[in-house]
Amino acid sequence: MSEVLVVIGVGGMGETIARRQAPGKKTLLADFNQSAIDSLADRMFTDGFDVETQRVDVSSRESLTALATTAAALGPITQVVHTAGLSPTQAPLEAILNVDLVGVALMLEIFGPIVAPGAAGVVISSSSGYLTPAFSPEQEAAIRGASPEELTSLEMFSADALRNSPGMAYGVAKRANRVQVQNASALWGQSGARINSVSPGVISTAMGRQELASDSGAFMRSMVENSGTGRLGTPSDIADGVTFLLSPQASFITGIDLLIDGGSVAAVATGRARM
Amino acid sequence: MSEVLVVIGVGGMGETIARRQAPGKKTLLADFNQSAIDSLADRMFTDGFDVETQRVDVSSRESLTALATTAAALGPITQVVHTAGLSPTQAPLEAILNVDLVGVALMLEIFGPIVAPGAAGVVISSSSGYLTPAFSPEQEAAIRGASPEELTSLEMFSADALRNSPGMAYGVAKRANRVQVQNASALWGQSGARINSVSPGVISTAMGRQELASDSGAFMRSMVENSGTGRLGTPSDIADGVTFLLSPQASFITGIDLLIDGGSVAAVATGRARM
Amino acid sequence: MSEVLVVIGVGGMGETIARRQAPGKKTLLADFNQSAIDSLADRMFTDGFDVETQRVDVSSRESLTALATTAAALGPITQVVHTAGLSPTQAPLEAILNVDLVGVALMLEIFGPIVAPGAAGVVISSSSGYLTPAFSPEQEAAIRGASPEELTSLEMFSADALRNSPGMAYGVAKRANRVQVQNASALWGQSGARINSVSPGVISTAMGRQELASDSGAFMRSMVENSGTGRLGTPSDIADGVTFLLSPQASFITGIDLLIDGGSVAAVATGRARM
Amino acid sequence: MSEVLVVIGVGGMGETIARRQAPGKKTLLADFNQSAIDSLADRMFTDGFDVETQRVDVSSRESLTALATTAAALGPITQVVHTAGLSPTQAPLEAILNVDLVGVALMLEIFGPIVAPGAAGVVISSSSGYLTPAFSPEQEAAIRGASPEELTSLEMFSADALRNSPGMAYGVAKRANRVQVQNASALWGQSGARINSVSPGVISTAMGRQELASDSGAFMRSMVENSGTGRLGTPSDIADGVTFLLSPQASFITGIDLLIDGGSVAAVATGRARM
Repeated sequence: MSEVLVVIGVGGMGETIARRQAPGKKTLLADFNQSAIDSLADRMFTDGFDVETQRVDVSSRESLTALATTAAALGPITQVVHTAGLSPTQAPLEAILNVDLVGVALMLEIFGPIVAPGAAGVVISSSSGYLTPAFSPEQEAAIRGASPEELTSLEMFSADALRNSPGMAYGVAKRANRVQVQNASALWGQSGARINSVSPGVISTAMGRQELASDSGAFMRSMVENSGTGRLGTPSDIADGVTFLLSPQASFITGIDLLIDGGSVAAVATGRARM
Repeated sequence: MSEVLVVIGVGGMGETIARRQAPGKKTLLADFNQSAIDSLADRMFTDGFDVETQRVDVSSRESLTALATTAAALGPITQVVHTAGLSPTQAPLEAILNVDLVGVALMLEIFGPIVAPGAAGVVISSSSGYLTPAFSPEQEAAIRGASPEELTSLEMFSADALRNSPGMAYGVAKRANRVQVQNASALWGQSGARINSVSPGVISTAMGRQELASDSGAFMRSMVENSGTGRLGTPSDIADGVTFLLSPQASFITGIDLLIDGGSVAAVATGRARM
Repeated sequence: MSEVLVVIGVGGMGETIARRQAPGKKTLLADFNQSAIDSLADRMFTDGFDVETQRVDVSSRESLTALATTAAALGPITQVVHTAGLSPTQAPLEAILNVDLVGVALMLEIFGPIVAPGAAGVVISSSSGYLTPAFSPEQEAAIRGASPEELTSLEMFSADALRNSPGMAYGVAKRANRVQVQNASALWGQSGARINSVSPGVISTAMGRQELASDSGAFMRSMVENSGTGRLGTPSDIADGVTFLLSPQASFITGIDLLIDGGSVAAVATGRARM
Repeated sequence: MSEVLVVIGVGGMGETIARRQAPGKKTLLADFNQSAIDSLADRMFTDGFDVETQRVDVSSRESLTALATTAAALGPITQVVHTAGLSPTQAPLEAILNVDLVGVALMLEIFGPIVAPGAAGVVISSSSGYLTPAFSPEQEAAIRGASPEELTSLEMFSADALRNSPGMAYGVAKRANRVQVQNASALWGQSGARINSVSPGVISTAMGRQELASDSGAFMRSMVENSGTGRLGTPSDIADGVTFLLSPQASFITGIDLLIDGGSVAAVATGRARM
């Protein structure tokens, strides 16, 4: 029985990571968009991969639980890659919180207990989480203490606190991901498994270009131009980091976030890039 | 002319990293301890490595500049690994600041402009930097604004502010390393190079065991037992992370810190491990 | 000035390898098929890669020399990946020899002297070269002694010797690639560079499926079923091997072939798979 | 229950590989030399590794079976590294055959059926196997057909056929390793596992330097000087190749040999290096 790789979210980044990790494994592709998983499954089958699919709504406990049940039936789950996310240019505030905040909480809680010993998971967060003010210790404790379904009832995630801004909701949700992953490292550790996140900077995917073209585009361009690498990221850059975190070479790494941003957060933090 | 690898600090971790990265390169080993570099150079020569040595005092601009001059004369410097550090069980407050804070600042400033295009550097910091209260924006700006020699004159690094505690000095210096590396990513970027740090958790080296046996040992043991991995780290775990950060696969990573701690910081942050 | 990656041949395997190696580099895509390079260049540009293109006919010294000139003008050439090849289902005997045998010889000779110190190249050969009878020492010496343009005049590559069989020409050319790469390791070594080949087994690309559906398909299926892994290969498997050979971790590997075939050659050699 | 790594033979190469692969695993160190395993176990324990030891005589089925029983009791065996070997400067012909030929055969047969799904093994062979005349198909079939204990009774391994030369015995045994590993890929495949070998060239270990100083030293020096890399190998070079073969990135590689020789076999094959 082959090891099972679960990839949740099959956009450009999800596809790149799936193709990278899939050799020799049974891969379960999941996404909200049925035609997206069908299309990728067809193409990966053509390329020799052993692929299964299941539609999922990550904001639904029932839907994610069904996915986990399917995955567990396929064999020992050794890798979980969670790339499902909504950007502020794509969706309203509420949907962003349901997918980017609650969806991650549900995945961490549902998959943590069922992954195989030695397994590893990666959540794709965002460098936006680094450009959002730090949480207070009380806010961090509140995120850890809330069940996934209670998260959106916390005052810090109210529309008022977020000034009705999808962009702010996105940044706060992505910052919360780091608290969630840090906290979940205990639960995953009980399974002998590891869980980390990756925070991509400005990546040149369809979604990334959408954001570059949005109001926040000028700031993004300033970040890139003033960053240490001076370039946009590619899906390969993110897949390289994910591959490392999932590898035996990272067996002492859990509960952390790996920022892969070309140095753009540094450009902001040091005042070189400006809004 | 071979590529040049510079390894500053040749304790257990420095040796492991040096042996990992040295194949095919000219390696320049540097340390405060002449007999330590002579011994490692002998053993690495026996094992087929192409090794040079030079004594260095990282707290001295003159000494580090001399090292840089030697390195540049050997060929294009493509990798710099800075592992030189003093732990609170080894040294008084002032020495810790001079080595762990000023030494890093000097290395970043002196090597940044002379490394080859495509080069990468890694500073070994410590997870202690994550267990120290966050700096204020003003403190971060002060660290960035000060020359290496001015750093210890900042109020935040005064014996009073550090309560005359070598342990606190260590934690604050290691936290400062992240600010320094983030800031230096611009300077290194101008050379087409990258610079990052790694923060090891409780690693089972001679220095690590010394710390475990010290007053802070009970806390360390609690951190390890409540961490996601439940184990001590090894020099190999750190070398694996350093290898990744120095590799082409990390070409979009600069100005960041990679925490390799087995989940022990998470155990503290979530209240599972207690002082 | 960025390091330059040259990818010759942009089919499924070439694309996968190009995307894997391209981050942080200037990538020069070359192929006989102009629309194939235009299409891949567009898609890679969208994904944030820094891409240039040039049409090439690998069987022409003039055309490959022009490619090398373009590449050298872009910056230091640190990686060359040669995936251009014709399969027996696609082309007549003469074309196969011109591309798979002469094309490789020309690339090795033209690029060897101009790559940067520390550079590495990989030629994609085929496991078919392992299913072809071994050459005599005299035949190997003849391959080494002939200029690229003289190769097809050798008796061993005559239509008679190859029984007018494109399949036999393919196997013999691919076996010759190993002799060519072994021999070229001296020339590339003079540049401080390395050169190796990879021999993929039955890979599920468009070309691979074409071969599976051909007369030799039954034999291929028997090889896969009786192989140690029992599965078809994917472009990712090959890219993983190429990534290793191009990495600093392979700095002591040159002049060799890496067989990535899932164990299918072993199945034939041990008599488990039969024609 | 942790994954189990078995390292058979703990000389310089065995130690380097063990330290590289051991993080996060239970490591079982085995060697003929009890004090060697005790010493390495002590040092690895100090460095935070989880280590067990057992003395083994690889030329004895009973002894290797006892090792396998111990290993299996520790947990799922996911990696087996066989570095046990005798060089012609160390031992007489008979001992070389018993260790380098029979020992490998026994390990392949005994561990193949008990390793975990997804496991991988590596046998350290030698580039000497490439400098020995090729076997005839009948000889290869004889190697495959013989039980481990019958091997030394084959005519090709008689003292006469080997001209009473330990050096020739060594080369022939190492060449046979490739036939053995190729053949064993079927048995290991039935466990869902992979098995490969690595053939180091002239490596600067204690054993390597012994050989350099021996009668064959002049030839070795000629090989190195005329090789593509022009340098001696290091234990790190071999560990890098082993790490690749054991990694998920090599999941389509089984039954093969990876030559890591700096191009020295190429120097001999092409006539640049001479006896």
